[in-house]
Amino acid sequence: MTLRNENIQKNLRRRLKRVAKDACSIKTAKKRLPITRWLPTYNFTILIQDMIAGITVGLTAIPQGIAYAVVAGLSPEYGLYSGLMGGFVYLFFGSSKDVTVGPTAIMSALTARYVLDYSSDFAVLAAFLSGVVILIMGTLQLGFLVDFVSVPVISGFTTAAALQIASAQFTSLFGLDGKSGTVFSQSVYNFVVNIRTAKLWDPVLGFSTILILVLLKKFGEGCSRNDTAVRQFRWLLSLARNAVVVVIGMIIVYVIKVVQDQEPLKLIGDIGSGLPKFQLPPFSTVVGNETYDFSDMMETLGPQSIVIPLVSIIESIAIAKAFAGGAQLDATQEMIALGFCNVIGSFVRSMPVTGSFTRTALNNASGVQTPAGGIFTGFLILLALSLLTSTFYFIPKASLAGLIITAMFSMIDYEIFMRLWKNSKRELLVMFVTILVSLWFGLEYGLVIGILAEAVMLLFRVARPKIEISSLKTADREAFAIPLGDNVAYCAAEHIRRAVLEAAQVAGDDAVIIVDGSKLRSMDMTVAANLMAVVKDLERKSRKIVFLNFNPEIQKICESINNKHADKFINAPSAEDLGMLNERKFSAVNVNV
Amino acid sequence: MTLRNENIQKNLRRRLKRVAKDACSIKTAKKRLPITRWLPTYNFTILIQDMIAGITVGLTAIPQGIAYAVVAGLSPEYGLYSGLMGGFVYLFFGSSKDVTVGPTAIMSALTARYVLDYSSDFAVLAAFLSGVVILIMGTLQLGFLVDFVSVPVISGFTTAAALQIASAQFTSLFGLDGKSGTVFSQSVYNFVVNIRTAKLWDPVLGFSTILILVLLKKFGEGCSRNDTAVRQFRWLLSLARNAVVVVIGMIIVYVIKVVQDQEPLKLIGDIGSGLPKFQLPPFSTVVGNETYDFSDMMETLGPQSIVIPLVSIIESIAIAKAFAGGAQLDATQEMIALGFCNVIGSFVRSMPVTGSFTRTALNNASGVQTPAGGIFTGFLILLALSLLTSTFYFIPKASLAGLIITAMFSMIDYEIFMRLWKNSKRELLVMFVTILVSLWFGLEYGLVIGILAEAVMLLFRVARPKIEISSLKTADREAFAIPLGDNVAYCAAEHIRRAVLEAAQVAGDDAVIIVDGSKLRSMDMTVAANLMAVVKDLERKSRKIVFLNFNPEIQKICESINNKHADKFINAPSAEDLGMLNERKFSAVNVNV
Repeated sequence: MTLRNENIQKNLRRRLKRVAKDACSIKTAKKRLPITRWLPTYNFTILIQDMIAGITVGLTAIPQGIAYAVVAGLSPEYGLYSGLMGGFVYLFFGSSKDVTVGPTAIMSALTARYVLDYSSDFAVLAAFLSGVVILIMGTLQLGFLVDFVSVPVISGFTTAAALQIASAQFTSLFGLDGKSGTVFSQSVYNFVVNIRTAKLWDPVLGFSTILILVLLKKFGEGCSRNDTAVRQFRWLLSLARNAVVVVIGMIIVYVIKVVQDQEPLKLIGDIGSGLPKFQLPPFSTVVGNETYDFSDMMETLGPQSIVIPLVSIIESIAIAKAFAGGAQLDATQEMIALGFCNVIGSFVRSMPVTGSFTRTALNNASGVQTPAGGIFTGFLILLALSLLTSTFYFIPKASLAGLIITAMFSMIDYEIFMRLWKNSKRELLVMFVTILVSLWFGLEYGLVIGILAEAVMLLFRVARPKIEISSLKTADREAFAIPLGDNVAYCAAEHIRRAVLEAAQVAGDDAVIIVDGSKLRSMDMTVAANLMAVVKDLERKSRKIVFLNFNPEIQKICESINNKHADKFINAPSAEDLGMLNERKFSAVNVNV
Repeated sequence: MTLRNENIQKNLRRRLKRVAKDACSIKTAKKRLPITRWLPTYNFTILIQDMIAGITVGLTAIPQGIAYAVVAGLSPEYGLYSGLMGGFVYLFFGSSKDVTVGPTAIMSALTARYVLDYSSDFAVLAAFLSGVVILIMGTLQLGFLVDFVSVPVISGFTTAAALQIASAQFTSLFGLDGKSGTVFSQSVYNFVVNIRTAKLWDPVLGFSTILILVLLKKFGEGCSRNDTAVRQFRWLLSLARNAVVVVIGMIIVYVIKVVQDQEPLKLIGDIGSGLPKFQLPPFSTVVGNETYDFSDMMETLGPQSIVIPLVSIIESIAIAKAFAGGAQLDATQEMIALGFCNVIGSFVRSMPVTGSFTRTALNNASGVQTPAGGIFTGFLILLALSLLTSTFYFIPKASLAGLIITAMFSMIDYEIFMRLWKNSKRELLVMFVTILVSLWFGLEYGLVIGILAEAVMLLFRVARPKIEISSLKTADREAFAIPLGDNVAYCAAEHIRRAVLEAAQVAGDDAVIIVDGSKLRSMDMTVAANLMAVVKDLERKSRKIVFLNFNPEIQKICESINNKHADKFINAPSAEDLGMLNERKFSAVNVNV
């Protein structure tokens, strides 16, 4: 029996209510604008801390932004546009001090298909639509839908995304002619087809970049911000490694150009300069000679208009949870913040954004105190957009490819393969299905199929609960106990009926079948109907069956179907005691039979 | 603890195996041709009993066949064609002595749309395809899919089918001009639009038919085959009431025609006479000026090509189960029999068939001994086809409409509404969704939406298990116990994490959070990952948490994620004992904290 002491329960409820009330007594407006909570106590010390963190994050956000724009197939300035509004908007709506919203590899990968096949307008529209969908899901409190994405599915999806993004960079890494692809299978195919067009210096620079990144990472390991000066430098250099390799690449290209007046490497090339205009997102667009109105664009986006916001929510909430440090997370609030980041971002030509794990971790490690850190990141990006765009011309594509590929290898969770192999082959299967579908058909299909596969498998498990029939013998009688689980759903009705009939078949003529409902807390009508039908069947053969410890509510359901079997419901020592059954106890059970 | 006595378990397993082996030792061929089991012991007494039952069933099968052909919008002879092969084929493959396979109201209703909008060829092709699908499902042992159709969904579907079929007869009942409809909403709309064209004598005959049927049913109540002569006559008249009202209608029409040379009532009219040719089912057809090849026809049938076989299986298995009297039912065998009935039936222009509840019950009540009874039913139908088709010309449509409407009212399970209202509003909702979608969009959509709604609701219930946090107090310490259910699925991970954090929030600083896994038998990786993340979070706040009675396998999963928490897993008296916790025991629990 679980504890049912009235007083303790009441006390507990009162305390839970108080906690809930405390959370609600702050005005809703205040709740939905978390800035109102921390701004009044903001001071100069906090400002300095936020500034340091914000600038550190900014130094990573710039090369990452450029790289992720490239992943999406967009011109690099789009990556900066996308990093711009995140900080400013999250400042007002965000509830986590650490979370940094901006472009991420996966969001870029999901967008890539539409940019390559159509135009950049689709990326911006996707951001706007994602924002709207996230806002709707937030206000309708639909965040719980994310619960149906399991760890194996997320892991499989992330692994596939990393492979897809890395494979799409092969063309740049080897300096190949021709396009890469928007799906892993396509990228690999194009790579193989075009391998003969490989250049010499692009792969040299690309693989060197990868090597330097790995070494710089090792170089900074174990060092931190509060170390000796040397170790502080190592820490900083390691942190800034993405910027470092890009700058090295640019210098090499610049020197070759000035000295030899040659461009032996493929470069990013001319990019739009200056700040983005604040304008409506593109609700219609022209691709080639064809005009797409809003509904055409929606149709083109198709399933993505659900998958992008869903992935955006999953990434962002997962990160916010990881950095919440055990505090309750207001998922609704995070979704509202994320929704606004996307919607407002789309007015400055942002692609879809979400929380970035790398930059959030960096923000946290750099000692950020409030979401105000994002302002400084934003200003740094603005600065880069105003002054540095002409410099970006010299970024070699191979450097970026090396940077992106290296980042992707750290995104894969290698341990989970072995962990699932050892503990849960079923979940391993789900992961492989997710990976394979993602690699072959595209990430969005992989995610959807993974979620569905997991749900269908769950339904089948619920439909086939493990029933351990136990045989109980006494001097004068035999019994078979069929224990039911805590929730017996309609789809398990037939399975349980079969178990009862099986026991009846095995049992001797005067044996008793005990359907043990001691753990049972809920039961569907379908199961009740099936049980009553079995009773009727067994009675016709004059077999004895009893229902042990069914709670009154469930007994009521059974009796609503057939009220002639009230005498079959008995209460006796719990099923646990039946295991240690002795003759006396068992005859006690039998009294009512 | 459940009983784990090795010997008893072994003994049980051995006995279960023996039962299984007994079933398998009969050769598969013999198993798949049940006729081989009963034919060797067949004798004259059994023959007589089968003959009486078969002819009784045949007398009902003829008017029902005509009526259901009308429901499907087919010419009446199709109903007879459909009743023809059932008996002959089921004879070889059927495992139930009672089940009678033939046309049923619901199968006709599902077919009606295609007959009305296209042609009768679609009904025949639907029978062939259904047969193939059923055979495939049977051989792949996919019969368990039927478990996902719950009682509320079946009830809702049946109710909607009854209303749809009845409403489609309003046109005939009132002698209206114009078409009725293939969906309830459409039939009601057409009825209202055409109500001004109502005739006088059609509704008079129709409503009289209904009245006579109700009275004849009452007349036979309580009487049986083994009663006094008078009561035997009442029983027989009541049984044959469908035939009686049709014959009365025919006589009235005939008399009026002979005496006054008038036809004041709408009649069935000319129907094809004679036996059907044995020919391939129509794999292509012409409707109007358009030729439909096989793929066009498949496309036209659409979701029906899955829904019709599914419903066919549901009806047939449910009936076989009801008449199995507690014996294990070989669902695979029933599906094979049903599949062949449909496939072979389609060669004599049968529409889709399944087990008929009315005729199966009648067969049983008439004392049938083997499936051989079906032969006599078949021969009686053959006789009717050869000799009576010209007579059928005189059947008034209003009589049939009255007959069909009366049958439909007995198909609805009225009690389930109140039963669900009292016990399970959730399931009532599912039923209403099924009914409303069926009535508005069509039966097939209602069934599919009902199944999906039930599955989605189940997933949400699994995702939100009821967790009763209990507070345990001792003199020196406080604890909160969070009991887990027996199967914790990935989608419940977040819910459990929240429960733990909630308890931690309510608890005092030195309180212990006990996650009680005593009942736990399986847990997904996602849940393990979440629990380990919570431990990390709580540790950072130096809150104490322990995992009680997690079985070694589940502990292993948790430790594969984070192996630093082995000391948190403790075994102690079961959660049940924690309820009656005394100070000594509780300190024992605390030893390991």
